[in-house]
Amino acid sequence: MKRRLLQPEILIEALPYIREFTGKPFVVKLGGSTLLDEAQCTRIAGDIALLKLVGIQLVVVHGGGKHINEMLQRLGIQNEFKNGLRVTNEETMRIVEMVLSGRSNKDIVTLINRYGGKALGISGKDGPLIRALPYTDANGGTYGQVGIIESVAGDVIEHLLTGGFIPVISPVAYGEGGRSYNLNADHAASRIAQAICAKKLIYLSDIPGVLRDPRDPGTLISELGALEAEALIADGTISGGMLPKIQSIVECLRHGVEKVHIISGLEPHALLLEIFTNGGIGTEFHAAL
Amino acid sequence: MKRRLLQPEILIEALPYIREFTGKPFVVKLGGSTLLDEAQCTRIAGDIALLKLVGIQLVVVHGGGKHINEMLQRLGIQNEFKNGLRVTNEETMRIVEMVLSGRSNKDIVTLINRYGGKALGISGKDGPLIRALPYTDANGGTYGQVGIIESVAGDVIEHLLTGGFIPVISPVAYGEGGRSYNLNADHAASRIAQAICAKKLIYLSDIPGVLRDPRDPGTLISELGALEAEALIADGTISGGMLPKIQSIVECLRHGVEKVHIISGLEPHALLLEIFTNGGIGTEFHAAL
Amino acid sequence: MKRRLLQPEILIEALPYIREFTGKPFVVKLGGSTLLDEAQCTRIAGDIALLKLVGIQLVVVHGGGKHINEMLQRLGIQNEFKNGLRVTNEETMRIVEMVLSGRSNKDIVTLINRYGGKALGISGKDGPLIRALPYTDANGGTYGQVGIIESVAGDVIEHLLTGGFIPVISPVAYGEGGRSYNLNADHAASRIAQAICAKKLIYLSDIPGVLRDPRDPGTLISELGALEAEALIADGTISGGMLPKIQSIVECLRHGVEKVHIISGLEPHALLLEIFTNGGIGTEFHAAL
Amino acid sequence: MKRRLLQPEILIEALPYIREFTGKPFVVKLGGSTLLDEAQCTRIAGDIALLKLVGIQLVVVHGGGKHINEMLQRLGIQNEFKNGLRVTNEETMRIVEMVLSGRSNKDIVTLINRYGGKALGISGKDGPLIRALPYTDANGGTYGQVGIIESVAGDVIEHLLTGGFIPVISPVAYGEGGRSYNLNADHAASRIAQAICAKKLIYLSDIPGVLRDPRDPGTLISELGALEAEALIADGTISGGMLPKIQSIVECLRHGVEKVHIISGLEPHALLLEIFTNGGIGTEFHAAL
Amino acid sequence: MKRRLLQPEILIEALPYIREFTGKPFVVKLGGSTLLDEAQCTRIAGDIALLKLVGIQLVVVHGGGKHINEMLQRLGIQNEFKNGLRVTNEETMRIVEMVLSGRSNKDIVTLINRYGGKALGISGKDGPLIRALPYTDANGGTYGQVGIIESVAGDVIEHLLTGGFIPVISPVAYGEGGRSYNLNADHAASRIAQAICAKKLIYLSDIPGVLRDPRDPGTLISELGALEAEALIADGTISGGMLPKIQSIVECLRHGVEKVHIISGLEPHALLLEIFTNGGIGTEFHAAL
Amino acid sequence: MKRRLLQPEILIEALPYIREFTGKPFVVKLGGSTLLDEAQCTRIAGDIALLKLVGIQLVVVHGGGKHINEMLQRLGIQNEFKNGLRVTNEETMRIVEMVLSGRSNKDIVTLINRYGGKALGISGKDGPLIRALPYTDANGGTYGQVGIIESVAGDVIEHLLTGGFIPVISPVAYGEGGRSYNLNADHAASRIAQAICAKKLIYLSDIPGVLRDPRDPGTLISELGALEAEALIADGTISGGMLPKIQSIVECLRHGVEKVHIISGLEPHALLLEIFTNGGIGTEFHAAL
Repeated sequence: MKRRLLQPEILIEALPYIREFTGKPFVVKLGGSTLLDEAQCTRIAGDIALLKLVGIQLVVVHGGGKHINEMLQRLGIQNEFKNGLRVTNEETMRIVEMVLSGRSNKDIVTLINRYGGKALGISGKDGPLIRALPYTDANGGTYGQVGIIESVAGDVIEHLLTGGFIPVISPVAYGEGGRSYNLNADHAASRIAQAICAKKLIYLSDIPGVLRDPRDPGTLISELGALEAEALIADGTISGGMLPKIQSIVECLRHGVEKVHIISGLEPHALLLEIFTNGGIGTEFHAAL
Repeated sequence: MKRRLLQPEILIEALPYIREFTGKPFVVKLGGSTLLDEAQCTRIAGDIALLKLVGIQLVVVHGGGKHINEMLQRLGIQNEFKNGLRVTNEETMRIVEMVLSGRSNKDIVTLINRYGGKALGISGKDGPLIRALPYTDANGGTYGQVGIIESVAGDVIEHLLTGGFIPVISPVAYGEGGRSYNLNADHAASRIAQAICAKKLIYLSDIPGVLRDPRDPGTLISELGALEAEALIADGTISGGMLPKIQSIVECLRHGVEKVHIISGLEPHALLLEIFTNGGIGTEFHAAL
Repeated sequence: MKRRLLQPEILIEALPYIREFTGKPFVVKLGGSTLLDEAQCTRIAGDIALLKLVGIQLVVVHGGGKHINEMLQRLGIQNEFKNGLRVTNEETMRIVEMVLSGRSNKDIVTLINRYGGKALGISGKDGPLIRALPYTDANGGTYGQVGIIESVAGDVIEHLLTGGFIPVISPVAYGEGGRSYNLNADHAASRIAQAICAKKLIYLSDIPGVLRDPRDPGTLISELGALEAEALIADGTISGGMLPKIQSIVECLRHGVEKVHIISGLEPHALLLEIFTNGGIGTEFHAAL
Repeated sequence: MKRRLLQPEILIEALPYIREFTGKPFVVKLGGSTLLDEAQCTRIAGDIALLKLVGIQLVVVHGGGKHINEMLQRLGIQNEFKNGLRVTNEETMRIVEMVLSGRSNKDIVTLINRYGGKALGISGKDGPLIRALPYTDANGGTYGQVGIIESVAGDVIEHLLTGGFIPVISPVAYGEGGRSYNLNADHAASRIAQAICAKKLIYLSDIPGVLRDPRDPGTLISELGALEAEALIADGTISGGMLPKIQSIVECLRHGVEKVHIISGLEPHALLLEIFTNGGIGTEFHAAL
Repeated sequence: MKRRLLQPEILIEALPYIREFTGKPFVVKLGGSTLLDEAQCTRIAGDIALLKLVGIQLVVVHGGGKHINEMLQRLGIQNEFKNGLRVTNEETMRIVEMVLSGRSNKDIVTLINRYGGKALGISGKDGPLIRALPYTDANGGTYGQVGIIESVAGDVIEHLLTGGFIPVISPVAYGEGGRSYNLNADHAASRIAQAICAKKLIYLSDIPGVLRDPRDPGTLISELGALEAEALIADGTISGGMLPKIQSIVECLRHGVEKVHIISGLEPHALLLEIFTNGGIGTEFHAAL
Repeated sequence: MKRRLLQPEILIEALPYIREFTGKPFVVKLGGSTLLDEAQCTRIAGDIALLKLVGIQLVVVHGGGKHINEMLQRLGIQNEFKNGLRVTNEETMRIVEMVLSGRSNKDIVTLINRYGGKALGISGKDGPLIRALPYTDANGGTYGQVGIIESVAGDVIEHLLTGGFIPVISPVAYGEGGRSYNLNADHAASRIAQAICAKKLIYLSDIPGVLRDPRDPGTLISELGALEAEALIADGTISGGMLPKIQSIVECLRHGVEKVHIISGLEPHALLLEIFTNGGIGTEFHAAL
């Protein structure tokens, strides 16, 4: 009989984790490209609903760059980029906010709700959850309504969690006089994780984790302490687009979040395997050493 | 001294109402044109924040027709109307949802939050709060993703109220398989008021109330029982665009909402005067008679 | 239509105060002469019931000198006064207690209850709420059963407030062996306000407030800090019968009561205007400077 | 050694009663003459404080006829009696109320508080606890402000009990427009016992209980069912001043009070022995039979 | 890397069961022979502790026949059996109780506690949890202190579960005058499951389940409705020692227990596989059909 | 009449103690010989149930030496004693545990339950309540499975008390790897009293208390401070079998238990008289001096 072949080991391995994580808050960041592949996105939504089912308090933070670009293009609005950041004037910001909070956000909410997950989508302006100031770079350069986070009102999220909801948050913040600000979604996820004392923050994107040699997937680093991560920044191993993500991670570990993970959304059920098994899928960061 | 001129009468009149309404849920529907005049909209947001301050549990439902039209036009999408309803295909629905939930909704949230009101904007798809079926008219005609409300999950709103938030709701619903449906906002407000057993439902729009002669503002009807309203429908006094609104009101009074009001948003502080004084501003509907 | 003339400004001014004061304890001292004018007393009772209605936790402390004098006279008991204080022997004390707790107290209770206010009258001996020692003046002189407050059991009052009652308190205290003591009602009000951490203590009497020149009502001082009040005592501006009242006020501000007011009970609805408007009627004392 | 002589039997007898009565409400009526003997009154106050100590929720109702007579006489006010009832005009009522609520009430409160009992004295006008109508006899005769009880607000007493207080209640009621009414104290005790679903009502007076032959104390009836009591009324055994007391008792047993006792306050520790031992001191009435 | 080989399917299958069963009470009956094999018993104790860890409210009922026999033999006490039941006189009962409650019970408690399971061992006499009457067979025959259950005080178990304990229960009951009675452990488990409205009752013994042909393990019946089980009794398929167990099971299903399972303790991790996978190990009984 | 002879004095003496002790935890140690006299044991069980009835939170700790000896003898197991302690090998420990937890424990439970006392018997291995290490004497000598207490989990007992149970505890502890350890019951009682912050610990045994001259009962010491007790140990007045008991008592008083009593179980109702009267029966130890 087929059932005799069942191997209970993974279950025995998972049960203590389930117990440990029940009732604990986790933040999951869904990266831009993850959102474009509907099959992949659907599978992730299913895993999120399943994690909620066993009592993990999930919070989802998302980006939406590709949806924004598409809409700006349809409306014939020119993008101006400076040092890799979109310079966001008022007209652009109106579109950015509308797409993030009205489209990307509701797409994710819908997918999770199809699995019975009680997702509830808001932006950082609701509550208001996130307050921001205009971002200024090291040289004093500004980028219009690109913002830097001033504070996160963790109680807004905690109230939604208490109600059994999965908050899904778009990276738009509330500034002085009600002005909207566009945020870096990786950093927003990190600050939200800090504000609610998340046990874990998980970045789901299209890379397998931190690679010693970015061109060789065989050089994946499984585990990394905060100090080691800083050393890898210092020696240039971590650079380019990876840099701000890792800086957000280190900040996070310094402010009470126990573990941060980078995993690939391409791996089926990556979230479940990363959370419930002794080994894992991508790179795990921890505070100690 | 200036303070000696203060007339305490309006206060003495208002105090018992404040006591009576504290902790009670009210639904306010903000009509489309109200949203276009920023000064007017700002004043209303201030009144909403003030009502919240004295403990009234406010829920805001909004439309957004004019924002939708503007965006469809910019994108060159043709509107098809049938019997006064927008026939909503998938492409149009995507834009409708994005504008309602990503723009109109966040504009209102922002204004209320500028007055410290803790507004939190969601659509009917979040939770999911509102489930809908495709709308079919009396002749079996359908209109794409125009929906008719199947159920409202009042507990989603009640949880937000418990947290001290002002829920601001866009009229988009969750259908089978996660499909989005466009709702009539007046009807959505009525069903939401029923679901949370609201004490009052107030329609703030650009008309002063029900007029016996639509061309003569001097014929305003101050008070109307549910039966009388049905008589006015039967004899044709109420007709045209007013008809579905009054039908929603009568349904509401039949399902436990005590009072429904239609008032003009043009009148400064119309909300406060309607709620806290013995007289009022527009037309008040009640269940009895 | 009459209702169009309503000026919502006073309401807009009052709503934030209502919010701020809801659930907060206030002590109102009703002075002797206020109690003799029935119309005035009735109006004040109405205002007290109205304040209770919007959630202010009211405590009333009263005197009753004129009722006592009248009864002593009817019974042919001679009053002996020394330094302005009634020397109170056992026979006199019996009458004083009976009049204060059995007549003045019940008259006020009755008036408030006619407005639905749930007043409940007790003396300082009930609970016991107030414990006293025999009063000794600076020269070691004593005055029979004239007492000085040793302690106030704030929890007695707080329990009554929790039950939705308006405690009305006569200034009689419990001494060693159950002996009764006669108290200065102004001081009793001050100590009670301290014991329950009242937000405000309001003296309603027949004077408009502190006057720079007692003969000229135009010299009313609207606002006074604790230090300034002490300076006015030092320079003799405040003297005579006013002195112990102001000393009680300063003591009160030094022990956690935020604001103390002296207002005239002759002004219609003085309580409401003083509490709910930005300006006020009499003199407001505050702790800062 | 002295302690070896202790007989634990009464303790073993009492412990189950203590358990049974803990937390249960008892009403004790203190009769007029009991109040005049200070030694006796002091002993009773001690027993009341002791009963409170083991968790019995005590309520005391008192009369005060002799104090009233004394004061009316001092003030030269003539008493008019009609059918054994004092005809109470407005002037007399003012004195009656003042003496009952300001003197008799506070005397009892003071004695109990000397034993640490947390007594708190109110009249039926406080709350208002007791509402009354003018009393009309069988022939339509009225007696001024002599009242008949319309309703008792049991929650006023229950709130005081919750706070750990012993409510001490004077038999004055609140009538229309705040008018005071004088009540029969035995009947007030009975109605109060009904309103709070007292487990026991105990009349402490100067008679040992119901006697078959009023002139022979050896004919004391130890136990009496409600029906038997009615039979004794019918055959004339119970008559005169005893009649209204027994009628109040029968009414009480018909409305949920389990047991009513008449005991003599002259017997030392009568209350304790009646409550905590299998036998008893006076006459016990019960509903059955 | 090894971890890449993990198959998440069993986890995805298990998670909804974990969610469904969290906080629900399960009764596990450990059969006599299971207790003799220490390795097997240890593994089962581990599984029990693991089930507790994910929030299942476990109750263990055990037998102990072999321990009893061994002790009776050492003490030279003769066993008398009648119709397969041990005739239990007072001397035998003393030994039976001592062995069941002092040895078998504490052995199981110890094993579970070694896995951190907070087991707490009691007998049916504690509380008292189980009350029994002397057992009489169909012919009126009695068997000394062999008992039949009269009632089970489910609140005793529920209180222990609330405290986070795993109650381990020996099948000894409290009879009239404190007399001990020996119970059939299968029936005790069934009555306990009924008393606490257990979601599942699981019999762990040395047989794989119900076999159509007792000599052929290939004829295992996986699923059986209550009616079907009764049919198998009627046609003689179920007979002998299996009969009372199946009768207890049918009684159980008729009184609110949803599912009953018979599984073999020889199968490693049988408990986990039976509870958390769609298929199973032994025979599952359900109420329907 | 018989009832007139009742002397209320003992009741008046007892009531304040009842009040003081209600809800407070007491530990009662029942000594070995007490358990052998069934009449005496029954009377004590009755007193325990009565104390529970008035709200004292009772915990019973028992020994069982004589039952153990009897069973070891029947099984032909030789006792080896060293320095007055039973050297306990594995075979002996099995019997010791079985007799203490399966017989002595259940006997006491049964007697208390006959009086309605809700006794629930556990050993120190349940929970686990008591953890122990192997006992080593001053010379490094060991005694097999004789244990010394490492820790007591007071919350296990407190949870049972919350449920209204009387925990009855046998002196067997849980050691490393689940190994059983035999404890000195006097010391177990002392450590349990400390762990639950008992108000009193009472040793019920066959001696009247501490005697200055062990041969003369007339030299009973009624009261003893901790320091005095230590002095009596130092000067040799306390020695022999009494020594470890008094050492446990002093330890207890040093760790927050207010009073410890040694009384004779031979005295009828000794427990009640010791607890509820000003004098007492045996020796009372207190912390001060």
